[in-house]
Amino acid sequence: MPVLLPPRASDSFLDLALAGERAQATRLTLDLFAEGFPLPVLITDLLGAVQREVGARWHRAEIGVADEHLVTGVSQATLGALAATVPHRPGRGTVVLACAEGDWHSLPAQLFAEALRAEGQGVLYLGASSPSEDVSRLLERRRPDALLVTCNLALSYPGVAGLADAAHRHGVPVLAGGRALNPVRAVALGADAWAADVTSAVNLLRSWRRFPPEVDPSPVELVAAAPALDARAPELGGIAYEALAERFPPMADYDRRQRARTYEDLVYIVRFLAAARLVDDEEVFTTFATWLEELLVARGVPAAALIAGLEVLAPSVRDIDERSGALALSAVERIGCRAA
Amino acid sequence: MPVLLPPRASDSFLDLALAGERAQATRLTLDLFAEGFPLPVLITDLLGAVQREVGARWHRAEIGVADEHLVTGVSQATLGALAATVPHRPGRGTVVLACAEGDWHSLPAQLFAEALRAEGQGVLYLGASSPSEDVSRLLERRRPDALLVTCNLALSYPGVAGLADAAHRHGVPVLAGGRALNPVRAVALGADAWAADVTSAVNLLRSWRRFPPEVDPSPVELVAAAPALDARAPELGGIAYEALAERFPPMADYDRRQRARTYEDLVYIVRFLAAARLVDDEEVFTTFATWLEELLVARGVPAAALIAGLEVLAPSVRDIDERSGALALSAVERIGCRAA
Repeated sequence: MPVLLPPRASDSFLDLALAGERAQATRLTLDLFAEGFPLPVLITDLLGAVQREVGARWHRAEIGVADEHLVTGVSQATLGALAATVPHRPGRGTVVLACAEGDWHSLPAQLFAEALRAEGQGVLYLGASSPSEDVSRLLERRRPDALLVTCNLALSYPGVAGLADAAHRHGVPVLAGGRALNPVRAVALGADAWAADVTSAVNLLRSWRRFPPEVDPSPVELVAAAPALDARAPELGGIAYEALAERFPPMADYDRRQRARTYEDLVYIVRFLAAARLVDDEEVFTTFATWLEELLVARGVPAAALIAGLEVLAPSVRDIDERSGALALSAVERIGCRAA
Repeated sequence: MPVLLPPRASDSFLDLALAGERAQATRLTLDLFAEGFPLPVLITDLLGAVQREVGARWHRAEIGVADEHLVTGVSQATLGALAATVPHRPGRGTVVLACAEGDWHSLPAQLFAEALRAEGQGVLYLGASSPSEDVSRLLERRRPDALLVTCNLALSYPGVAGLADAAHRHGVPVLAGGRALNPVRAVALGADAWAADVTSAVNLLRSWRRFPPEVDPSPVELVAAAPALDARAPELGGIAYEALAERFPPMADYDRRQRARTYEDLVYIVRFLAAARLVDDEEVFTTFATWLEELLVARGVPAAALIAGLEVLAPSVRDIDERSGALALSAVERIGCRAA
């Protein structure tokens, strides 16, 4: 039977964290633990839920990045307090857990690591932005049962593939998870399996201990156009930025910060197109485009700006990869329909 | 009287952390706390010392990035356990503590925040890479006694200046610290004061509560050449990379990874030249150049490669900023003398 937290627990935690009341937020969590709520539930349904909600509020421009950082710091401290409260049990086997290179948001991986430990799984936690070559050397030396890779942003897909290759070179199987993955995407990036949550990860690792998966040491084959597009994103963003200034007159009144943001968004669009191609899943891009549209509209930037941005990007994207160019233009249609 | 830790405490912690024995490393630390060693001492002389040592071993190529991450994860968990052990005292006043935008290594700031809290200082911890505009909005709303900025890498200097300006717009004084700063550099970046350690920070904040410093709301004036150089670092690195391939024949045998590293190093050289100019302190660059030379030599790259890199960069750097070009060439002489 699933254990249900008091409905308002995560709201209360978030209110306290946003107010900077760290001690009270931690106390609330430790009290729930003392009342018998298991650690994995507190990690997933309290701290995890808080982080998802804070991300959603930032997306809707209800809170700022600094508020988000404040809450993350409180969640992290609470996680530390929780982890210190739980008695240490010698872990079953050892897995290495890492975020792909370039992924600096380590809290989801930390939450996952602590939840695994609470289930008796031994974990070597590497955390944020772990370069494949370096992880490779550690795997060679430590020979863990598996490498676990968390990926919460599609921009880290190339890093996930790099980590999978590194693990496979040493015969280590790879289990991937996180919000930017699903079973098909995980396997496309070279993972041997995907886990939706801690329970499935623990079950899978248990079955791997009995029946180790066959690991193919050859590198995963990726769509060649994707890395080319990703590498040229800053350049394509720059070209599109110049074109956009002509195409979208309100840009003339943008301040330095708005200009920098616009350029960044153009580069992100190209990089998400590349990410979608890498796992051969257009939804990676359409989800991002909708998310970006909502984010911009919440900040007073009209959908027309995003449409203009996609239109100026499409030709040079198409020169590198035809399908990505078409994908950018199909997003234009969809956003146009919604905006109309 | 300073409290001295058992001489081998940090060595033992580091050995345990490198072996992935998190529970034992945390236990060792909590035992020292139970024996009466104060939290700030454990933070600075145990966890802080461990992080410095792990950085030094990585620099000497004795351990890899993955090992460094492993240790950081253990230190962070231990910090969480320590913080949870200490009874909460209502803090004296409130300060906001942030790392500059682009600085993702948050553990030093976390250590500092916990040490401040242990001294009874109320802290709103924002942590890694906090964009100035967002911090500005938080400061406007929260009106803390001060903004504390930690800076451990000179590449974050522009972010420090941005945070200082943001604070000053709302009349909030700025206290800066961290390994990349000293009193002169901190003030050059707009800080109102610099603190060498937790004790001096606490003392200064106490005196600021009695005699609040006068805060100048106008933005700090920075050497104009520095941002221009920093912004063009990727481009100058690219030009120099092409030239270096002709100048330094062994590059022909470099693999993909070595080529990427070489390009990155060239970009870093330009960015550290810009950082040195920003605070008008050549030592920022000479320290970096020596560090890079040692790092490369420890990885089998001869000093001649670095000399060649500096020489191919110097002309285009000089076109943007004469003094930076001269600084690059003076490093060539120094490295040449040592190598000879």
